[in-house]
Amino acid sequence: MAERIVVALGGNALGNSPEEQLELVRSTARPIVDLVEKGYEVIIGHGNGPQVGMINLAMEFSANKGGSTPFMPFPECGAMTQGYIGYHLQQAIQQELNARGIDKACATVVTQVVVDERDPGFQKPTKPVGSFYSKEESERIAQEKGFTFVEDAGRGYRRVVPSPIPQRIVEKRVVEQLVSCGDVVITVGGGGIPVVETENGLRGVAAVIDKDRASALLAREVQADRLIILTAVDRVCINFNKPDQQELAEMTLADCEKYIAEGQFAPGSMLPKVQSCMEFVRDSAPGCTALITSLSRAAEALEGKTGTVIRK
Amino acid sequence: MAERIVVALGGNALGNSPEEQLELVRSTARPIVDLVEKGYEVIIGHGNGPQVGMINLAMEFSANKGGSTPFMPFPECGAMTQGYIGYHLQQAIQQELNARGIDKACATVVTQVVVDERDPGFQKPTKPVGSFYSKEESERIAQEKGFTFVEDAGRGYRRVVPSPIPQRIVEKRVVEQLVSCGDVVITVGGGGIPVVETENGLRGVAAVIDKDRASALLAREVQADRLIILTAVDRVCINFNKPDQQELAEMTLADCEKYIAEGQFAPGSMLPKVQSCMEFVRDSAPGCTALITSLSRAAEALEGKTGTVIRK
Repeated sequence: MAERIVVALGGNALGNSPEEQLELVRSTARPIVDLVEKGYEVIIGHGNGPQVGMINLAMEFSANKGGSTPFMPFPECGAMTQGYIGYHLQQAIQQELNARGIDKACATVVTQVVVDERDPGFQKPTKPVGSFYSKEESERIAQEKGFTFVEDAGRGYRRVVPSPIPQRIVEKRVVEQLVSCGDVVITVGGGGIPVVETENGLRGVAAVIDKDRASALLAREVQADRLIILTAVDRVCINFNKPDQQELAEMTLADCEKYIAEGQFAPGSMLPKVQSCMEFVRDSAPGCTALITSLSRAAEALEGKTGTVIRK
Repeated sequence: MAERIVVALGGNALGNSPEEQLELVRSTARPIVDLVEKGYEVIIGHGNGPQVGMINLAMEFSANKGGSTPFMPFPECGAMTQGYIGYHLQQAIQQELNARGIDKACATVVTQVVVDERDPGFQKPTKPVGSFYSKEESERIAQEKGFTFVEDAGRGYRRVVPSPIPQRIVEKRVVEQLVSCGDVVITVGGGGIPVVETENGLRGVAAVIDKDRASALLAREVQADRLIILTAVDRVCINFNKPDQQELAEMTLADCEKYIAEGQFAPGSMLPKVQSCMEFVRDSAPGCTALITSLSRAAEALEGKTGTVIRK
């Protein structure tokens, strides 16, 4: 049986314009296809920070400044990024598969992720999205649409949305079907389109789901053997940027807890990555491990040559 | 063996704003799930005219008028519509499946469609997209980006893109896999993201692929038993809107050719629908038929109670 891997890819690795993205996905495709070539089943989760920011900004600008297009809700902007990023990624990965003579398909699945409306995140939105407004404008919009605004480092007022914990991958079954058929699957783009369960089915909500957490949840749900979270560095460090900085080849769950208590990992950066790995390892079968490493060295890391392994 | 059906859904049936679309997909989901309930395998192709128009306009407006977002190429706008429309459609269809206790999944596959760069359509672009410009502005953009502009009914100059014939569904294999797993599949959104084959793989091109033609091609490629093209009327008519108007219950390929020669079907409206049906029927196994009818009566039409059947 092939080992099943979920790879979480950063949205920042995709660039800030369509041209940049089209260029960057080519270099992303190679290490991904390296994993396929080594016989792993590969599922890709990816971020969409810069991309959903861009689309949301453009739709908002056009709706407000006379572009005569309608207001576009935030979850719909997220759905757009899944099409936009998925298109480039699947094209590049398929091309790399074809070039190596690997007879497999690559597919993007538009993916919703359920969050809990009672998640404490909804009481305290923290993720800034969209344009900067004056105090007056922001108060008018807040009243009109029920948005929350915060003052952002002297640059004006900006809408904030919550970052709730992902609870369930709606299209999990579809992802499993495609992986079982041998496909490389792109899913949970931007952490997934956030939806809540209501009496009448699912309803999109304005929120940002952390893509590492969504990928970790997906990895548990599809019973992956391995979760790989890609980042800018080859290995997790303690005493980061200090004279006694130390790269870690391995952490147990107990090590992770100790380092977190020491404040070793930056919130909003390495901390959620380590936490996502812990969640996956804790809830998975004994042999399952998580790996934090850089995209370019992912295949080597799987052979134990680099990267930080998180295990039970 | 279950009969396999490709249903082509109009983009106009999806409304002009996210709120309208979210409302309309609910009524779209019911007749679609009727087909599933009757035991058919269902694949949905859909248009994106108003939606890609809206996204393209907003991205263009923001890029040109100070919204500080980058220029967004046309195929990328199409990819966004697949995420945007697919999200709403799959959510509504899944909800309807769940409500009826049908244990099936609904999935949107981001789908590219290959067109031929030598297609005569590229020599004579006809589909207007984006904003209206003055003669001077349009000439400047034409020079800068190589776009073609035409004067549009006294309202200014507007970019036109070609409408080439679809040649190949890139994600055909993925669609087949999901249908074989029992899923309801949403694909070839907006006729598919138009791409051309190059030495280095696929490359997106600014073009609009007719969604009925793309659905007909898909139906042939996945060896569907039936193609259903949904439109505003229950049946195709000859002498349309004249005193001797006549509804047709059936047309052979020879009938179709005769009526087309008589100019019975309006170009850009019923004509491409009839032609798409002809292509499917001509290239498919003997028993395969196409059907033109309205969304609300699709299930009845499959029982022969309404609709126009096109057969060999």
